[in-house]
Amino acid sequence: MTLLVQKFGGTSVGSPDRIREVADYVARSQRRGNRIVLVASAMGKETDELLRLADQVASSKPGREMDMLITGGERKACALLSMALHDRGVDADSFTGSQAGFVTDTNHQNAKIIKLQPSRIRQALDAGRVPVVGGSQGVSTDSNVTFLGRGGSDTTAVALADALNADACELYTDVPGVFSTDPRLVPNARRIDKISFDELLEMTATGCPKPAMRSVEYARAYGVKLHVRSAFSWVPGTWVTEEGSMENALISAVTHDTSEAKMTVSGVIDRPGVAATLFRTLADADVNIDMIVQNVSEQGHTDISFTVPHQQVDKATAAVDSILDVLGAAGVVADRQVARVSLIGAGMRTNPGVAATMFETLANNGINIEMISTSAIRVSCVVRETQVEQAVASLHDAFELHIPPQNRAHI
Amino acid sequence: MTLLVQKFGGTSVGSPDRIREVADYVARSQRRGNRIVLVASAMGKETDELLRLADQVASSKPGREMDMLITGGERKACALLSMALHDRGVDADSFTGSQAGFVTDTNHQNAKIIKLQPSRIRQALDAGRVPVVGGSQGVSTDSNVTFLGRGGSDTTAVALADALNADACELYTDVPGVFSTDPRLVPNARRIDKISFDELLEMTATGCPKPAMRSVEYARAYGVKLHVRSAFSWVPGTWVTEEGSMENALISAVTHDTSEAKMTVSGVIDRPGVAATLFRTLADADVNIDMIVQNVSEQGHTDISFTVPHQQVDKATAAVDSILDVLGAAGVVADRQVARVSLIGAGMRTNPGVAATMFETLANNGINIEMISTSAIRVSCVVRETQVEQAVASLHDAFELHIPPQNRAHI
Repeated sequence: MTLLVQKFGGTSVGSPDRIREVADYVARSQRRGNRIVLVASAMGKETDELLRLADQVASSKPGREMDMLITGGERKACALLSMALHDRGVDADSFTGSQAGFVTDTNHQNAKIIKLQPSRIRQALDAGRVPVVGGSQGVSTDSNVTFLGRGGSDTTAVALADALNADACELYTDVPGVFSTDPRLVPNARRIDKISFDELLEMTATGCPKPAMRSVEYARAYGVKLHVRSAFSWVPGTWVTEEGSMENALISAVTHDTSEAKMTVSGVIDRPGVAATLFRTLADADVNIDMIVQNVSEQGHTDISFTVPHQQVDKATAAVDSILDVLGAAGVVADRQVARVSLIGAGMRTNPGVAATMFETLANNGINIEMISTSAIRVSCVVRETQVEQAVASLHDAFELHIPPQNRAHI
Repeated sequence: MTLLVQKFGGTSVGSPDRIREVADYVARSQRRGNRIVLVASAMGKETDELLRLADQVASSKPGREMDMLITGGERKACALLSMALHDRGVDADSFTGSQAGFVTDTNHQNAKIIKLQPSRIRQALDAGRVPVVGGSQGVSTDSNVTFLGRGGSDTTAVALADALNADACELYTDVPGVFSTDPRLVPNARRIDKISFDELLEMTATGCPKPAMRSVEYARAYGVKLHVRSAFSWVPGTWVTEEGSMENALISAVTHDTSEAKMTVSGVIDRPGVAATLFRTLADADVNIDMIVQNVSEQGHTDISFTVPHQQVDKATAAVDSILDVLGAAGVVADRQVARVSLIGAGMRTNPGVAATMFETLANNGINIEMISTSAIRVSCVVRETQVEQAVASLHDAFELHIPPQNRAHI
């Protein structure tokens, strides 16, 4: 008998109607002989509403109290889903993270799972029941309620799938799977049937919103088969597997990201340890750096550029300003009018021609490249924000991503 | 140092503004040297909203799941109150019922406290912190979340006050205390300074909405001093004490209740066991009976009347219909256009004249009495619903309840 962990949240359970529809689906799935464990995150925008309420009540918000507040959203969704299942003749029980056996560290608002002992979940399954587990939560080693962070319900689902040795972990979302690029920008974007963990990680790291990166890392580390699929059409979506892309595609997808700014520290003295000083200072200031590019040295001085989230630009600027002397640098400037376009594909490892084709395609479309960064399975270019949609469309077209991989002309 | 258990809920914490105001008050109370344990029930109408959501999602609503859903309201209020206290420099920690040590039976939606071991609450107090406990909740002996029922937060507060040996249990509401009658009906209704548990129990049983009857019974059983007071004016309210009314008032209050219907089973054979059959049948149908009156027998037949909540009339009618043969009865009729007016006072025990004065007052005002029921400290009359306000006003006037007891003329 197949054991599935199915995770629902957000718009998938955003209204009473949606909750009933999910319950219909789960009931059908169970009648077909599957054993099912559900994981629920909060309904619709509830987490945002709870955060707004906290803002209205207090300015200092201890993590312990925030976690007590926020985890209520998942708990509510679980109880309602369980009721809807009972209505359909399916015996179901809701469980908080603590009841489900999630023990975490004491790092409130972003707790890490230390131990998972889902004995009550196993008991419920053995009794033919459907356990419905509150996502993104647990109990800390000092017995307080903890929250695993935004997107933590995906991690809850993956961890349960691992501990219960489930056949698959299905993450239901409001999109039908992972696409070759953003379907809102490129109408003939193609849903990818299978993708590797590494490719998906590069995609989530460069602007693809779902699933949460941490859950993909967890799934890769423990060999949990992920299935990203739609809670609206219910048709099969994208499988994410350890083995890598079964399609052997050279290129899987084009992604873009407009959430980061480009910062450039100019006239830095080109001597050992300068980059280390710069990025240690930024790390100490809790600035999240993504791409880093250091230009060639001219007469003993160089420019170092990097990208940071828009909301961290001020913090990053202040941090760099404080060490301009140490760096021997002329100054630091931030440019928010940039976007990143990335090409993702496991097949790139052995195909240096991919990057060249990418740069040519952009040049042919009059798009200037301001920064370049590559990994084994990704090439990213920073371009003007106004040109990013054109960049995505032209690359999707050039690499024939709208065509199934086996039918593409080789590039 | 004084230890106070303070309970807030409903409109008292109905908005972010209200939560901040309660936090201001608690902070001041702590600065004056009091040690404080807070109990919170859900904000405003949140419990009703959760119930409505459940109705929208499912028709069969298992108690276990309802409790998981409903207790979220208290939990949310606790977390927000704790944050607001932190904002004012008061170290505070929220606790669920389970964390606070409330162990209950497995009777979901209306669980009873079996054991209370508030070790975490004591630890928090010893560390100079303010524990904020989720009202009306606990963990059952089989490790599920339980709800103590509507109004259960008062019981939570009283139980904690008892277990911690607190100096008083303060129940904060949207009214300034217990009144000699409903101030909305009678403008010169008087706030009672002190009242006995028995008197308050009779009042809550006959239409006075607060505090919850079960918490008063608990407080009486364990000798917890209750103080019913306002979360809006913050001035002292009504003390409820074991010793009885310190004022030695003959009559304390007039209350009224329009939530019940009068049902009459007519032509019942007047023989032993008939009433037992009737009320056992109603009890088995989960009908809550309040007043019971059996009229004098005429030619071997009698009428039996009783009051039931409006929403149980159909259930009660069906139950009685099913045994009309056994009762040898002609039929059963329900009358929803009735109201009950009650006179409450410990002093009535030894003053039979009180009932007479009550009946005369009603008669002089043209108000017909349809049923009468008395206890040692209460006389209740069922009258037409349209006349109940006049009945309350005339009785309040006749017994001079607007005047402090020591200044009243003896009746």
